[in-house]
Amino acid sequence: MADSRKVGVLGGGQLGRMLIEAANRLNIQVNVLDVAASPAKQISAHDGHIEGSFKNADSVKKLAQVSDVVTVEIEHVDTHMLEEVAGQVKVEPSWKTLRMIKDKYAQKLYLKEHGVDVAESVDLEGKGVQGLKDVGSSFGYPFMLKSKTEAYDGRGNFVVKSEGDVDAAFEALGKRPLYAERWADFRMELAVMVVKTKDGVLTFPTVETVHEDSICKLTYAPPRNVSPEITQKAQELAKKAIGAFEGKGVFGVEMFLLKDDKLLINEIAPRPHNSGHYTIEACPLSQYDAHLRAILDLPIPASGLRLREPSIMLNILGGQTPDSHIQIANRALTSPNASIHLYGKGDARPGRKMGHITVTAPSLAEAEAEIQPLVDFVDDLKGKSKKDTSSPTTTSGENQPLVAVIMGSDSDLPVLKPGLQLLEKLSIPFTTRITSAHRTPDWLRTFSKQASSTSLRVIIGAAGGAAHLPGMCASWTTLPVIGLPVKATHLDGLDSLWSMSQMPRGEPVATVGINNSVNAALLAVRILGASDLAVRERLRVWMEGNEKEVLAKDQALLEKGYAAYLQGMGK
Amino acid sequence: MADSRKVGVLGGGQLGRMLIEAANRLNIQVNVLDVAASPAKQISAHDGHIEGSFKNADSVKKLAQVSDVVTVEIEHVDTHMLEEVAGQVKVEPSWKTLRMIKDKYAQKLYLKEHGVDVAESVDLEGKGVQGLKDVGSSFGYPFMLKSKTEAYDGRGNFVVKSEGDVDAAFEALGKRPLYAERWADFRMELAVMVVKTKDGVLTFPTVETVHEDSICKLTYAPPRNVSPEITQKAQELAKKAIGAFEGKGVFGVEMFLLKDDKLLINEIAPRPHNSGHYTIEACPLSQYDAHLRAILDLPIPASGLRLREPSIMLNILGGQTPDSHIQIANRALTSPNASIHLYGKGDARPGRKMGHITVTAPSLAEAEAEIQPLVDFVDDLKGKSKKDTSSPTTTSGENQPLVAVIMGSDSDLPVLKPGLQLLEKLSIPFTTRITSAHRTPDWLRTFSKQASSTSLRVIIGAAGGAAHLPGMCASWTTLPVIGLPVKATHLDGLDSLWSMSQMPRGEPVATVGINNSVNAALLAVRILGASDLAVRERLRVWMEGNEKEVLAKDQALLEKGYAAYLQGMGK
Repeated sequence: MADSRKVGVLGGGQLGRMLIEAANRLNIQVNVLDVAASPAKQISAHDGHIEGSFKNADSVKKLAQVSDVVTVEIEHVDTHMLEEVAGQVKVEPSWKTLRMIKDKYAQKLYLKEHGVDVAESVDLEGKGVQGLKDVGSSFGYPFMLKSKTEAYDGRGNFVVKSEGDVDAAFEALGKRPLYAERWADFRMELAVMVVKTKDGVLTFPTVETVHEDSICKLTYAPPRNVSPEITQKAQELAKKAIGAFEGKGVFGVEMFLLKDDKLLINEIAPRPHNSGHYTIEACPLSQYDAHLRAILDLPIPASGLRLREPSIMLNILGGQTPDSHIQIANRALTSPNASIHLYGKGDARPGRKMGHITVTAPSLAEAEAEIQPLVDFVDDLKGKSKKDTSSPTTTSGENQPLVAVIMGSDSDLPVLKPGLQLLEKLSIPFTTRITSAHRTPDWLRTFSKQASSTSLRVIIGAAGGAAHLPGMCASWTTLPVIGLPVKATHLDGLDSLWSMSQMPRGEPVATVGINNSVNAALLAVRILGASDLAVRERLRVWMEGNEKEVLAKDQALLEKGYAAYLQGMGK
Repeated sequence: MADSRKVGVLGGGQLGRMLIEAANRLNIQVNVLDVAASPAKQISAHDGHIEGSFKNADSVKKLAQVSDVVTVEIEHVDTHMLEEVAGQVKVEPSWKTLRMIKDKYAQKLYLKEHGVDVAESVDLEGKGVQGLKDVGSSFGYPFMLKSKTEAYDGRGNFVVKSEGDVDAAFEALGKRPLYAERWADFRMELAVMVVKTKDGVLTFPTVETVHEDSICKLTYAPPRNVSPEITQKAQELAKKAIGAFEGKGVFGVEMFLLKDDKLLINEIAPRPHNSGHYTIEACPLSQYDAHLRAILDLPIPASGLRLREPSIMLNILGGQTPDSHIQIANRALTSPNASIHLYGKGDARPGRKMGHITVTAPSLAEAEAEIQPLVDFVDDLKGKSKKDTSSPTTTSGENQPLVAVIMGSDSDLPVLKPGLQLLEKLSIPFTTRITSAHRTPDWLRTFSKQASSTSLRVIIGAAGGAAHLPGMCASWTTLPVIGLPVKATHLDGLDSLWSMSQMPRGEPVATVGINNSVNAALLAVRILGASDLAVRERLRVWMEGNEKEVLAKDQALLEKGYAAYLQGMGK
């Protein structure tokens, strides 16, 4: 064993199971407290497991007796027993943190006290129906009614849309300890997995999470159309939030990205989290590796948390039939980049997390194109109407562009044609846009600033005359920009060639020959091929074809003689 | 379960264990025939396992009774019992194939009959010492003496270096069924994992394997300094070889790359193989996923076998102390891109396969730089002298270059200096070479043709005057080539600018401004950043710094007025 210490875990569901996958590879024994044959126990054959409930004090005590470090895969545990055993065994994260976080209202007050931005909340315990109406008056509608405890995957939450909903909301949740949250008018939900170690706080990349019926459906790493500045801000906010709590391990931090780009913490989970499943394939270290190492004080090199390839995770939720999850998994077997995880939960129940699928690809656009048929399949199974597939909860499914070809004017389009045809021939997805540096400077700025957060990897800018287009674009993006000088009325194209090539130090434009759109396209292909071996191979084959063509012409010239050859050319 | 069929596997070592990792994720039950608590059984808790030996006929029969498909993790099994049970249960690959392959001499004859290139072999069974001497006369020395059966990891092999070795060789192996092989004068060993399905034959990428003391030590995917043509030829040869056998599953094909670039099959394994461990992290589907799907007739999309990131696998072999493998694993915990696999074999024995480490990185050069300290650590533990680390069995350990800066003459170097300094500042590893298109055309050709098989991803070519250097380089490579026109004595640099930018259709040169080596460097950085988000982020921060600098100057100009500002500039 890489480590002879034994880890005890409260709960043996899918999170415990994936934690054990990581532990198995290091030969670290994990003792699971849960019912027999629970998902986690199925892949761990030894006699250190405890049969029982993680809410039962005696069982927790038994687990502590056979373990060196105790951790959780769920926060709804007996924290009083954990407090009691904390003298004899390490408990990570701290029972204090678990007790604080399992009460969502207490969690939010605590974060607020520590200067972390959270949605505004009001305590409603014992305030009855009138309390809800008062909140409606002060927050306005809609607002979010939540149970302080035992709320997850939409259970224990109620969106109060108007005063007319108040009675129904109280009817549904009135017996539980309640609080209300001001409605966050978000444009997107983000999440960050944070690792708290003995030495400090590290973060995994920021992901976008998409919920449906209040259950996580998809995660996107990186988020779609979000700037690096915002994803970095999200990591910093998540770090700050988790820095406020005691103990070691991974924490899931869910947040709202508001329409004005402000970030608000939504919820925290003191354990591995659904929004971190993608890390198994997409990062060198997974959230499970990181949790295990953090609670055992083993090294976690920060760059092990990098994104190896963009990835999308799709949850496999139980449907109407007991085998609905199997149908989804079987469909995913035909998807080349899909890693399938089934949790060993037996028959499906509607909405139950039965497994997940992670697709990784060289670009998020390719991952989106690959996962779309799976999302459609899931939606079909669920009986979701086709119309819904254009809703923000589903991906676009287009083969998203890797190259943008921008031009100052549509008069440049004929010059671009041979280059665009070549991109098509080499199966490079591209988009063409008209953006004049002088007539639409703001649109060029917006386009260029967003470019690096989209599927794009290279930009070709065609322009004639003063030809500022590619140079200005390069000044607003970090992507490589290729300049195609177009011959205008005067100066034979030299004006554009010089304007593009002679950019000041700091913002290069990769300039190709005047009107030579084929070379602009081929340069874009070479740039993509620098990291994509499949593209490089297509280019090699194309160049080989070119070589053969010229060699064949040479042979023909040799055989026919120049005069007959010229005749053949009609000259 | 994704599939209710049960898989039986003969052997519960590390290969069986990793097969079960794959099966667990699909909730497919795998029944293991091996001793209790064998590596594979440790991660599979159910009552379908059989305790016993995979060489024992009764045990094989018992396994067949509880399984729907029977497969192997080792070929040294009772194929006669497999033949017997093949009527009631599927056996994959076929017992005929297993019987053929477990006899290495029969395997080679069979391949030869099917037109596959293998090393020349001679049967030596019953031929005694004289037989060996006869082989020495006909093949010359050295030649390879091998046991037909039960030979692996160097056991059962003997290199006969001269007639003086013959007696010792016979003494060592004489009691076994022997054959001899002509010595293959190879420059490198390659391996390909092949997947045989009901529909055809697929291949994983070609890898380079490095052996030490006849045991696999390292694998490189892709191989170092091997052209795409050769790696493709290797895949085709492997496909042809495996196409000759009956049955489904993955097969490991080891081969020699001779000094004249010819390929010869060395050995075949009818099962997952050490040279395919890297696929767990480096490919969307691993060799274990592929084996499981192949024997169960589940879909295997061909592009699921692609390489996501270059990767290097290092075996963790048992050393002199029982915990040597733990020491290596603990050292690997500090390596950010290292995935560690320990096999649960208890105490180490010298040379025993205790685990492996796979490092994946955006480039093979980065993976090499990261694995080198681990290789050094392993060599130190083994007491291997430092001098040995420069041997071909170890990697170079340099931070291998991503950018090559080539120049026609050392007179271009002063112009390049600011660009080279910027590459250093942005932590981009590069190399600088002098290659004149006119004075050293052959060297330029060799360099350019090899470039795409090395760590390089971008080339910057600086030249003045006729400035053919980047254009010729681009004609011999598929990598992106940046042209830096250098101002020579006449024409103010325009000659070079035009020579580079005006390349014919087919071979673009990304031309930057005259003498602007900073922009050449930045363009290289942007190209790397198109696929490497960490590089892109470093560039963004650098550009932000530039922006702040200019804004600060603007503020100073506003505050001081132009006269005082000019004075501050000393003008």
